[in-house]
Amino acid sequence: MSYQQLEQHQQRLYRLSHLGAICGWDQAAVMPQGGNEARAEAMAELDLLLHTARTAPQLAQWIADAEAEPLSELQRANLHEIKRQWQDATLLPGDLVEALSLAGSRCEHAWRRQRKENDWAGFAPNLEEVVRLSREVATLRAEALSVRPYDAMLALYEPGMTSARLDVIFGDLGQWLPGLIQDVTTRQRQTQPLQPRGPFPIASQQALGQEVMGLLGFDFAHGRLDVSSHPFCGGVPTDVRITTRYNEDEFVSSLMGIVHETGHARYEQGLPRHLLGQPVAEARSMGIHESQSLFCEMQLGHDPAFLNLIAPHIARHFGTQPALAPENLARLYLDVKPGLIRVDADEVTYPAHVILRYELERDLIEGRIEVADIPELWDAKMQQWLGLSTKGNYRDGCMQDIHWTDGSFGYFPSYTLGAMYAAQLRFALERALGASLGTLVAQGRLADVFGWLQQNVWQHGSAFDTDELVRRASGEALNPQWLRQHLEQRYLK
Amino acid sequence: MSYQQLEQHQQRLYRLSHLGAICGWDQAAVMPQGGNEARAEAMAELDLLLHTARTAPQLAQWIADAEAEPLSELQRANLHEIKRQWQDATLLPGDLVEALSLAGSRCEHAWRRQRKENDWAGFAPNLEEVVRLSREVATLRAEALSVRPYDAMLALYEPGMTSARLDVIFGDLGQWLPGLIQDVTTRQRQTQPLQPRGPFPIASQQALGQEVMGLLGFDFAHGRLDVSSHPFCGGVPTDVRITTRYNEDEFVSSLMGIVHETGHARYEQGLPRHLLGQPVAEARSMGIHESQSLFCEMQLGHDPAFLNLIAPHIARHFGTQPALAPENLARLYLDVKPGLIRVDADEVTYPAHVILRYELERDLIEGRIEVADIPELWDAKMQQWLGLSTKGNYRDGCMQDIHWTDGSFGYFPSYTLGAMYAAQLRFALERALGASLGTLVAQGRLADVFGWLQQNVWQHGSAFDTDELVRRASGEALNPQWLRQHLEQRYLK
Ligand SMILES: [Zn+2]
Ligand SMILES: [Zn+2]
Repeated sequence: MSYQQLEQHQQRLYRLSHLGAICGWDQAAVMPQGGNEARAEAMAELDLLLHTARTAPQLAQWIADAEAEPLSELQRANLHEIKRQWQDATLLPGDLVEALSLAGSRCEHAWRRQRKENDWAGFAPNLEEVVRLSREVATLRAEALSVRPYDAMLALYEPGMTSARLDVIFGDLGQWLPGLIQDVTTRQRQTQPLQPRGPFPIASQQALGQEVMGLLGFDFAHGRLDVSSHPFCGGVPTDVRITTRYNEDEFVSSLMGIVHETGHARYEQGLPRHLLGQPVAEARSMGIHESQSLFCEMQLGHDPAFLNLIAPHIARHFGTQPALAPENLARLYLDVKPGLIRVDADEVTYPAHVILRYELERDLIEGRIEVADIPELWDAKMQQWLGLSTKGNYRDGCMQDIHWTDGSFGYFPSYTLGAMYAAQLRFALERALGASLGTLVAQGRLADVFGWLQQNVWQHGSAFDTDELVRRASGEALNPQWLRQHLEQRYLK
Repeated sequence: MSYQQLEQHQQRLYRLSHLGAICGWDQAAVMPQGGNEARAEAMAELDLLLHTARTAPQLAQWIADAEAEPLSELQRANLHEIKRQWQDATLLPGDLVEALSLAGSRCEHAWRRQRKENDWAGFAPNLEEVVRLSREVATLRAEALSVRPYDAMLALYEPGMTSARLDVIFGDLGQWLPGLIQDVTTRQRQTQPLQPRGPFPIASQQALGQEVMGLLGFDFAHGRLDVSSHPFCGGVPTDVRITTRYNEDEFVSSLMGIVHETGHARYEQGLPRHLLGQPVAEARSMGIHESQSLFCEMQLGHDPAFLNLIAPHIARHFGTQPALAPENLARLYLDVKPGLIRVDADEVTYPAHVILRYELERDLIEGRIEVADIPELWDAKMQQWLGLSTKGNYRDGCMQDIHWTDGSFGYFPSYTLGAMYAAQLRFALERALGASLGTLVAQGRLADVFGWLQQNVWQHGSAFDTDELVRRASGEALNPQWLRQHLEQRYLK
């Protein structure tokens, strides 16, 4: 049967990708600097091998044949994902992929210096070339998938999502979020949190991080915590590698970074293990992945009941200064402050950063604006959303992110989709378990919380499309009102 | 040109092997236990891929064509090694390789328990099957290479070496080594070394180990030190991963283990970097590899001048107890005591363990003895060499090593060849630099010592056959008299 041949082919791809995932972790977490050149060559060789295998000429026929074969529902879902990945791998001509990869590396490499130097004039021509090639990519993908160009890019990260729908969803946020930000910041102006006084030894931070991972049910028989300069969640579902970075002067953000990556890790560890190797066993989308990390970090990790739970662990490692009391931890973690930098943003202002980028990249890819228009539009939108100016400040404005430098247009919405899915799932979980998340934490019922996610999200992998997954879990399609309700409850009650 | 095609093919194999080397290190040093099954599958998939590439049908023609092409001397040496590796990969039928691999896994797996239980009766039938298949391998290899069966196995580890020559060389050792062992042990009976009193915290042992690696010129930009249950030197020449294991009660053997692996690592780091990826840039043989680790460990690391050099480092980490004074360290490290276990043996008795095994495996592979004969022969040879009995004690006798369980017949001689090469190279180095190794260390001239090895061994990779390499470095072919002179000078002077 052709379907069986496809399954075997996927299994083989999966095993070889495993080696790349581990070597990628190694490169970021432990590799000595001098090993980099040979490692990059080895990884590129593997990428070439995988690309050749993913675009093997017999796959078109196998897929066509398999579509006519009698398959179970799960097999059909798997075939659907196999076909989707095969289309993504084959629909672009090799020389375009290579040209974009080269232009992306060049732009990203120069950006690392140009950003520090606030050098928009140097950066713009490189970005123009990346945009030019990305538009070609989007156009070709759009033709093949019969969707709009930007939607064809979205499909790489959030299959099924469209800009028409994002316009509605993000338009809704635009109605209430600016006012909410104003209300929260006004209210918080009355009290300031105490700042914890360090140093916080790195070995203690690491031990604390592992304890908190343990509370969150991270499976240490199938994963590790290590250090890298840019935290990530990598490895394979049977061996998930999360990383963080430490700073002796500060543990608050590093600890919550571990909680965030633990959310990603539990999703990976919870994917259907008996199906591993098949696309149907993979995470559903970047938005759903981010919903799991944000569930851990924001819904659960920032809940005062959770901070209450970990406060004794913090005290055991760092002593009992007033700044480490549960109430002050809550005040610290729930502090809302409009700022220029997306990655430093709190959960209330974060969507503003994302929607701003979404609007720009959507119009950029579809040719309604040009690279030269970005700085002025960025400044206007920052004024509108957060009342801040980035005029002349490219470094902390439109040059702050890496995403566009290598052509990852369509990625940004995942962050806010993730936040909305996380809120929606939390309310569904509370209805199902008959108690608020805070109560569940206080009652020591974290296993029930994660059991619900396992049951309703993790175990399904990619068996359903995103809408169906969310509908089965929460009773309705994506609805931004749950994020609103969460934020209003937490910050205005 | 066919030669160019072969070079590209090798480069590709090298890059893919890189991934396997790093994932192998990961598996031994950091992987959580639950990751093992998927990892084993991923590694097996890579092995299959590499085997397919190494036995690709076009290689025979490319090699034949390349042999007729105009090549530089270095290219010709590379082609020679390419052909050798290709022969090794192709000359056995796949089902024999698989059968031996299965029988070996089964024998090794059961041996881990059987050894503990001293269960020779259980072990013997498994070993018989491994021997039966290994004889088939040896016969087929012997026919293809036109050499004797055992020599065809030797060629896997020590190309160019023959049992006829080993008989002469080891026969020579048989003349003087038993007497030397007697003389040394009699002399040492007069004084006993003091035993250092722990605990020796692991973090301190690790810091000390890294300091000593630094003294030995280990390049930390191209390598790391980590922990594994069986110490090894892995990774790739641009990123060499050595491991050790620690025990809080003891640092003496762990530290010297690090010195040993550092010797392997410096050889790898010193291989001709501009040729990496080609077989001519690989280490010459297992014996030469071991000569570099034993040069570091035994010739250099056990020299009182070196112990003098590291004594202050030891004292800084572990305090100044009398047992850590340089003279007592020398007495500890140079203690000679006939024992049953090879891996615990000192440099004077070690060759006895190796020659005993060599004689047995040579006769086993060539059908002159059977598995059932081993225990009695083992006991007789232990009596003859070291005056010890292993009657009924299989665990500490013929069941102590892993090598035969998976069919690695022909490997054991490398250990003692390495010790002899190391001694011969040391005397050559002393003639070239005009001072004894101890003097060179005392004068702070370790860079000259390693510079000489770089010049005379490392940089040549596999450009010359082993005899030629040794002749160019030392002025003569392998000569066991240098090991004798070294041992007599060190232990009887
Ligand atoms: Zn994330
Ligand atoms: Zn060794």
